Parts: sequence; structure tokens; C-alpha cells
Amino acid sequence: MIDSRKGGKPLGGALLDVLLKRTPDRRPMWFMRQAGRYLPEYRAVRQRAGSFVDLCYNPELASEVTIQPLRRYDLDAAILFADILVVPHAMGLPLKFEEGEGPVLGTVRSLDDLNALRPLVGSYEVRQVCETVRLTRSSLAHDKALIGFCGGPWTVASYMVAGGSSDRVDAKLAAFRRDPWFVALIDRLVVESIEYLVAQAEAGAQAVQIFDSWAGDLIGDQLQEFVLDPISRIVAGVQARVPGLPVIVFARGIGSHQIKAAALPGVNAIGVETELGLDEIDVNVALQGNLDPVALLAGEDVARREALMVCAKIPKERHIFNLGHGIRLGTDPAVVGAVVDAVRRSEA
Amino acid sequence: MIDSRKGGKPLGGALLDVLLKRTPDRRPMWFMRQAGRYLPEYRAVRQRAGSFVDLCYNPELASEVTIQPLRRYDLDAAILFADILVVPHAMGLPLKFEEGEGPVLGTVRSLDDLNALRPLVGSYEVRQVCETVRLTRSSLAHDKALIGFCGGPWTVASYMVAGGSSDRVDAKLAAFRRDPWFVALIDRLVVESIEYLVAQAEAGAQAVQIFDSWAGDLIGDQLQEFVLDPISRIVAGVQARVPGLPVIVFARGIGSHQIKAAALPGVNAIGVETELGLDEIDVNVALQGNLDPVALLAGEDVARREALMVCAKIPKERHIFNLGHGIRLGTDPAVVGAVVDAVRRSEA
Repeated sequence: MIDSRKGGKPLGGALLDVLLKRTPDRRPMWFMRQAGRYLPEYRAVRQRAGSFVDLCYNPELASEVTIQPLRRYDLDAAILFADILVVPHAMGLPLKFEEGEGPVLGTVRSLDDLNALRPLVGSYEVRQVCETVRLTRSSLAHDKALIGFCGGPWTVASYMVAGGSSDRVDAKLAAFRRDPWFVALIDRLVVESIEYLVAQAEAGAQAVQIFDSWAGDLIGDQLQEFVLDPISRIVAGVQARVPGLPVIVFARGIGSHQIKAAALPGVNAIGVETELGLDEIDVNVALQGNLDPVALLAGEDVARREALMVCAKIPKERHIFNLGHGIRLGTDPAVVGAVVDAVRRSEA
Repeated sequence: MIDSRKGGKPLGGALLDVLLKRTPDRRPMWFMRQAGRYLPEYRAVRQRAGSFVDLCYNPELASEVTIQPLRRYDLDAAILFADILVVPHAMGLPLKFEEGEGPVLGTVRSLDDLNALRPLVGSYEVRQVCETVRLTRSSLAHDKALIGFCGGPWTVASYMVAGGSSDRVDAKLAAFRRDPWFVALIDRLVVESIEYLVAQAEAGAQAVQIFDSWAGDLIGDQLQEFVLDPISRIVAGVQARVPGLPVIVFARGIGSHQIKAAALPGVNAIGVETELGLDEIDVNVALQGNLDPVALLAGEDVARREALMVCAKIPKERHIFNLGHGIRLGTDPAVVGAVVDAVRRSEA
């Protein structure tokens, strides 16, 4: 029930308003990685949970960290606390996060590897994530949106091919050669991502975001085949089963020329990284972004100034205020608060 | 003597022809990092030289590795073997390259640090580099161009601020705050880069390239102030002293929208990274690039196909064939040869 109303106001507040082209009563805001190590309350929960993976699959604690930033800041959306590698993990690939090292993931480099994977529906991992969604939705205020997410097939595949590292050379080689196992891997990730996002929506997510962090690796026909077409099929597949579910696509690094192509049919907003100007992008959907997370390290004055410069480029009816990349470790939570307050005050 | 003629043909061959908007008799080609560890003959010289830094300042051996790729391949240009960190090193900052670790450089984070640096003119480092240029020019065939280079002030400054690592957070913070020492550092790098490029041109370089690898960190006013204006001042300063010296600007990552701004007055070509399509860029100067170096890892068939796709996007009169990033370690030299031959054959 995406658009059900209670008390005269639509569920999901300003974020859903912008996604659905209704007039929002304020500029919706959330921050990528708003639940994370820069927050002392997150670090406390993380310590209780054990590893990062343990936290992802602990619905009570994952829900807690999902909600934490909304207690501290006047934001409009919570984003499910999970990881894009939940999908391959739920398909049966081993996954762990080494402290300070990033993920270590089982690899898929052949049709045999691919065929050994199971469907993610019904897996422990997906059941736990969906329980986190349910718990979070039931705790969130009516006008706060809950965003679910998955990784884009290209990005997730690149981690599966590399075994967790973010080096995309082997994935690019497979794409250049159109290796049959790689084409099949992308297709499989489309199917599983649809299942995963539908499950999140049915559990209570009011919108979903597809993070294709490494989309910018490819151009031209390869961008179309391995990035844009798979995303398009996910959007169509999800919306066929959850009609009207808003979708945000963050195809990072594809540039202001190609980013228009990310405004695929059914896409309600596109995420924009810090390195593009919001005023360079001429599309008919909302834009999400793109304050530089480094500005949050530069103190309240600089952060406020830069945040207001972002807002000046685009009216609130078409904008979801966010960062262009995730919040950095070491960010002072007070600076995040100063930015939220400055944006709110500028519109009062 | 940029344009002196000998035997009826202009010095510098097809590369200079394209830079100077003459009709080239073939598509000029060179490869970023064409002198490097993928070549066994490079590895042999490097072993004799000692460290990477030792090799940069050994004119005989640096000249040898500069010329090596032209012995193996039918290329149109040699690029001086050196490093963008020669400038801060020649200004007095300690520099070493740890094996497999990248550079370790002294830092500049205050006006005092900056004022402690010396002018690079007359330094041992610059004298050795210029001797390399002289030796190389005297060995190169008449129709092969020798390209000198320096880093862009933003990129060089980011290494100076970070002490060698490529993490640009502290440089971005200084730029956000417009710290006076940082503004002065950029200004100083403009002055020193002019001296350095003029010295290279006087020693025999027929064209120079400014590598601003991290230009894409900034947008809008900051891109203008810390990337484009400094480059513009370097170009003007160099051409005031070496009239007509062709300049190639490689401002990586600034996107197809902003890259037009890199076609500054006096700039003869702009370098284009792999992630942009040459046919997206509408400028009135030549374009250099942009085969994906990963394509060279994918075998001769893929590499040839991708190379010819690059050429199909732009006529040879406006194109300097190159990679979009440097040749990768592990590239098979035979694949590079196959690409060169394919481009040549396609135009025969």
C-alpha cells in the first residue's frame, strides 16, 4: 500500500511526495550511510552485535541502527541497514568483512559456479532482512519513508567475480568478451534482485534504491547491456508485482551526458554523485544528491554553505537532498545536524 | 623551433600535425605509460637503474626507456620518462617510491612549509630531466614527436598535502575553506610548472601535456579556481615564452559537460578518459584517447575491436589515438602491437 493515506497525509511524507510528483511540504532529506560508524550510538550497537554481517542479520539491532539517525536529525527517510552483498550471500556465496579490509566473498567465474547458487527467496539472510524492514516500518513515524535497496547487477557481479574486492578488471574483461557465464550471471542477478526488492516492499519498504556504484566503468553499448538494461528489467519486474513502487537509481559515475539514460521507464529519481552539478542534468524525474561528504569534514560553516549551494540549484519539488557519496568515518555528527538545520531554516 | 621543417616534412610528424591543425598523413598514436613495466626491456633497464627515482634522474637510462616503445611499435610520439612529483621534489620535498606502495613525499600544510621550498630552476632534478629530453630528442627520428609533461597544480598539490598518497580529502578540505596557504601553494605550482615546461621545451620537447588526474574531484567554482584557472595560467605563461608550443590538457574525470571548459585558450588537444565517449565531446580542438587499458588485457581480438570502435568515432584530423588511462602492468606487449597494426591497417 504505497499511497495509502492516514490522517489526511500520505504515508512516507515528503520523500514519497517528491518521488510521486506531489508537492512536498518541505525538501526531503536523507544521507547515504546515515546509519554508520560516525555515530557513537551506532558504534555501541555494532559492538553488541558482533561482526558487520551479524548486525545485518539481526533484525532488532539492524532496525535500531536504521532508526538511529532519525532520532538525532529531522530527516525524511530511513534506509534499511544492510549491504549490497546480501544478495550473493543469500544465494549461497560465503561472505565476511575483515576489519578495515572490506568484504571477502566467494567467487563466481564460470557457469558451474553460477549454477551452484541457490535462489535467495526463503533464505535465512533474506528472511532476516525482511524482518528488519517490518520492525523498522512499525517503529517509524507515519511521515518518514523507509527505503529498501539492492546493488545494481553490474556492481554486484563485479564483487562476485573479484571475490569481494572492488577491482573490476576481471568483470570488465568478461564484459568485453561477453563471456556466456558473465551474461548469465547478470541475468540471474536481475531475477534475484527483483525477488529481493519485492520482498522488501512487501515487508514495508515504501521505495527502493538500486545502487550501481561502478556503473561508470562502462560506456556505450556495454553500459547499455550490463548496466542500464539490467536495471530497467529490475524496475519493470518489481513494479509489475508492486505497482507504483517508487524506484531511485544511483548509477554512479556515468556522467552528465549518459545519466539521462538512467531515467528509465518507471524510475522516479536518479541519484547524482558529488562530481556532477545538479544543474547540469536535464531529466524529467527528481534528482537525489549531492553534497560532498568531504564538506561535512570541513566544519559547520563550510558544510552549511555547500549544502545551501546544492539546494539553490534545484527546487524542492524535484529534489531529495542527500550526499553525493556516503558519510565518511570521522564526520562530526554535529556538522550533519547543522546541515539539516540550515536546509530547514532556509525554507522556513 | 616547434615548426621547423627538414626535408619538406614538419618536425614532429603526425602528432604535431593534428595539434597544429595541419592534415596528418596518418592517425597519430601513443599510449599513456607506454614506457613501463609491461615491457621486458623496461624491466631490464629499471633493474640496472636502481629505484624508480634513480631512473627518472639518469638521463641515459631515462632516455633509453622513453625511446623503447618506439622501437617496438610504429608510434608517433615518445613521452618523457619522469613523474609528476618531480616538481615538488625539485622544490626540495623528499620523495621516494616504496615498492608496490606508491610515492612517499614530504608534506606542505602551511605557509611556512611552502616558504621553505626553493625554486625548481637550476635544481639537480630539473637539470637531469632536461638532459633526458635533450638525449631523447637527439635520438628520435625526425617525424616522431617528443612530449614533455607536468602534473596539474590541483593534482600535484593534493599529493603534497597528503604526503604522497592519492587521498585528496585534506586537499579538498583546504579548497573548501580556501586556506591561504593552499591558495598560495596552487599559485606557486603554477609558477614552477611554467618554468619546468619551458625548460623541457627549450631542451627539445615539441609539445607538453598537463596531467590533472584528480581534476574530477571538484565542480563549479572550485573546479574553476583550483583546476581550470591554474592550468590556463600555465598555458599562457608557457606560450608567452615558447610561442606556439602545443599543449595537451588531460583533466581527468571532469565529465563531458565540463570538459569543454578544458579547451582553454592556447590548448591544442584535450585528453579524454575511458569513461567518456569521444563522440559526446563537442569542442573545437583535437581529442586524445581513449581506448580502455582493460581492453588490452582481453586479448588481441577484443583489443582490436575496441580500438577500431574508438577510431570510428572521430576522424584522424582531430584525433590522437591513445588509451583513456595508463597501460596496465600485465599487459601483453603483443596485444599493444596488434592494436597499433589494426589502426594502421584500417587507414591504409
